[in-house]
Amino acid sequence: MGTDFTATRAMFRMQEGVIYLDGNSLGPTPAAVAEKVRACITNEWGEMLITAWNRAGWMDKPRALGDRIGRLIGAERGTVVLGDTLSIKVYQALAAALELRPDRKVVLSDTGNFPTDLYMAEGLIRSLGGGHELRTVAPEEVEAAINQDIAVLMLTEVDYRTGRKHEMKHLIEMAHAAGALVVWDLAHSAGAIEVDLSGAGADFAVGCTYKYLNSGPGGPAFIYVAPRLADRVNPALSGWMGHEAPFAFDLGYRPGEGIERMRVGTPPILQMAALEASMDIWDRVDMADIRARSIELTEAFVEAVEAACPTLTLASPRDPEARGSQISFRHPEGYAIMQALIARGVIGDFRAPDILRFGFTPLYTTMEDVSHAAAILGEIMRDNLWDRAEFKTRAKVT
Amino acid sequence: MGTDFTATRAMFRMQEGVIYLDGNSLGPTPAAVAEKVRACITNEWGEMLITAWNRAGWMDKPRALGDRIGRLIGAERGTVVLGDTLSIKVYQALAAALELRPDRKVVLSDTGNFPTDLYMAEGLIRSLGGGHELRTVAPEEVEAAINQDIAVLMLTEVDYRTGRKHEMKHLIEMAHAAGALVVWDLAHSAGAIEVDLSGAGADFAVGCTYKYLNSGPGGPAFIYVAPRLADRVNPALSGWMGHEAPFAFDLGYRPGEGIERMRVGTPPILQMAALEASMDIWDRVDMADIRARSIELTEAFVEAVEAACPTLTLASPRDPEARGSQISFRHPEGYAIMQALIARGVIGDFRAPDILRFGFTPLYTTMEDVSHAAAILGEIMRDNLWDRAEFKTRAKVT
Repeated sequence: MGTDFTATRAMFRMQEGVIYLDGNSLGPTPAAVAEKVRACITNEWGEMLITAWNRAGWMDKPRALGDRIGRLIGAERGTVVLGDTLSIKVYQALAAALELRPDRKVVLSDTGNFPTDLYMAEGLIRSLGGGHELRTVAPEEVEAAINQDIAVLMLTEVDYRTGRKHEMKHLIEMAHAAGALVVWDLAHSAGAIEVDLSGAGADFAVGCTYKYLNSGPGGPAFIYVAPRLADRVNPALSGWMGHEAPFAFDLGYRPGEGIERMRVGTPPILQMAALEASMDIWDRVDMADIRARSIELTEAFVEAVEAACPTLTLASPRDPEARGSQISFRHPEGYAIMQALIARGVIGDFRAPDILRFGFTPLYTTMEDVSHAAAILGEIMRDNLWDRAEFKTRAKVT
Repeated sequence: MGTDFTATRAMFRMQEGVIYLDGNSLGPTPAAVAEKVRACITNEWGEMLITAWNRAGWMDKPRALGDRIGRLIGAERGTVVLGDTLSIKVYQALAAALELRPDRKVVLSDTGNFPTDLYMAEGLIRSLGGGHELRTVAPEEVEAAINQDIAVLMLTEVDYRTGRKHEMKHLIEMAHAAGALVVWDLAHSAGAIEVDLSGAGADFAVGCTYKYLNSGPGGPAFIYVAPRLADRVNPALSGWMGHEAPFAFDLGYRPGEGIERMRVGTPPILQMAALEASMDIWDRVDMADIRARSIELTEAFVEAVEAACPTLTLASPRDPEARGSQISFRHPEGYAIMQALIARGVIGDFRAPDILRFGFTPLYTTMEDVSHAAAILGEIMRDNLWDRAEFKTRAKVT
């Protein structure tokens, strides 16, 4: 294994007494991030002022960071660009894909997709006003539902609730054979598992950076368009940063070259500075090593929790090849159990109605974390420590 | 004058030897911003991790900051929300307005609108596929072009090139009398001039925060929807943060209450922390004082430059009531002149083909800045100091 996970862990600022198993929701702070953002504010924005757009390379960051993320997801250079939120990127990708399949009207997705992807599709379909249909089936029924009616297959590769993983390459082949395009949401894939967009023949992919990629709250999203499609895309969100010549201030839109046209507005430079601190860590990492260690961590967690907690039901696939880098268990009192865990310093999260969710992030999660977390969960279940009013009161959930 | 501009200037970190007249493009750093963002990174993201979404109030920031900005633009409480970029906010507002006028097909705008607004309208109209038309007339012809065909009048209040200001209240009355809705872009208004959205009977407004509002590069945009319309808006960009219950993870979209539905994805918390540092200054300010001082500054600049530089042609309206808080001059060698100015420490910017642009920002711009800048410009013009190869070489322009 070439990646030094002791070294990567040391590049994060971890909290004393906390085992953080929620990096699949919000990654922790890279140790260098505060200084990186300070330098951006003080030395770039503060001193260079407006000239920093060129002198500090701000204008090129969405593309430069896109290439660094691209390496982690098997994307060709120059095919990934940063910006906006994942919801917006879903809208862009789906709109572009639908326009490339004008004779078809069905968007096929599944009930395991993250809701905002479905919501954005709803909104787009309403705007299009062309009789499109969002057809949502159970995850295990996706393959059977692919047929000649499908314009676009839109899936989140790894289910945010259970960690169940779709077979990307196989589904792309099926979809392409039926004449459909595919949009992948990599929110729970990028930095979590090996992804090979190029090798899988992917069309479009989108993802966020604040989970496994540790860019901080509200960090920018990314979008991938296959090189064979990029110059055929007609952007629905045709913003000036995606214009062929943004600073010509033409009155009419002309799309920029390739992936550049998927840019929309002014990029969020402070959030990108934070992402750079994280990418300085990611640049040292081989995704095959991440995946191997992730499987070790998740396998150990499943084994320890199942041994200690007979009333918890595994909600994730038992086969590590069939899941991402999270483990979920079900329990009717899942909310209170998670609150009890958090009170003991083990931070995972809860997803209604009954899912306890734990993310495993080899960059900073150790085997000791796994065994301690499982032991604490075991105590909580054995002694019913969750059965207290303070743990059952629902706060606003994030 | 109740606002203490000596105090507000002291709350910015100004560069020695620089007169910054480009706050209409990118505001300078509030002195407190680096610490504000550091605290967000270290104390909130770093220590609270995922729990900061509730414990640090992150989830509510788009609305809380919206109210602070709302005060500066005459918006009722609870009618402004932050997020995304201005291009995205234009798309949202225009899509919503068009849907409220289903029987009409024309979007009326003008050639003085910022190009991205026109680009986004183009993209939206193409997606709608319903035979809409983007009709773009000269700014002075807008009023005459308002008729019963117009679904939406979409204008930037203050022209980014010349500072020419539309009469908001009058145009809204004209548009409403013709049965049209109006979308205002306040990019060069918010923090620059007095805006009274409520008093003017505005329908929709959008704006950015990185110009006069000093939120830093890529700071979030804002959107206003009149209370009488907000609950009738059917969001085109129907993201989960605008859902009635984002954390219920329903498969179907239900819009949130009022302005909440204009939220889309996860808010950019670091950029919002930077904006808070600026709003701590803005909270001390009365917009009537800003406007009065702005007129003093711009009048003095026009007078001094016209006296010293007979070959420069005023491109802004001479009547201060007819312009925003910037002054533009035309000259065929405008690019080289601006480069020569920047080399002397006076930072304005250039807009093709021939416009020298100077923003006046009372929070930190003094009368001494104005007279020094005019004097330096006078020397450059008198001695043709701009006529050097180094100033004529075009870099990538921002």
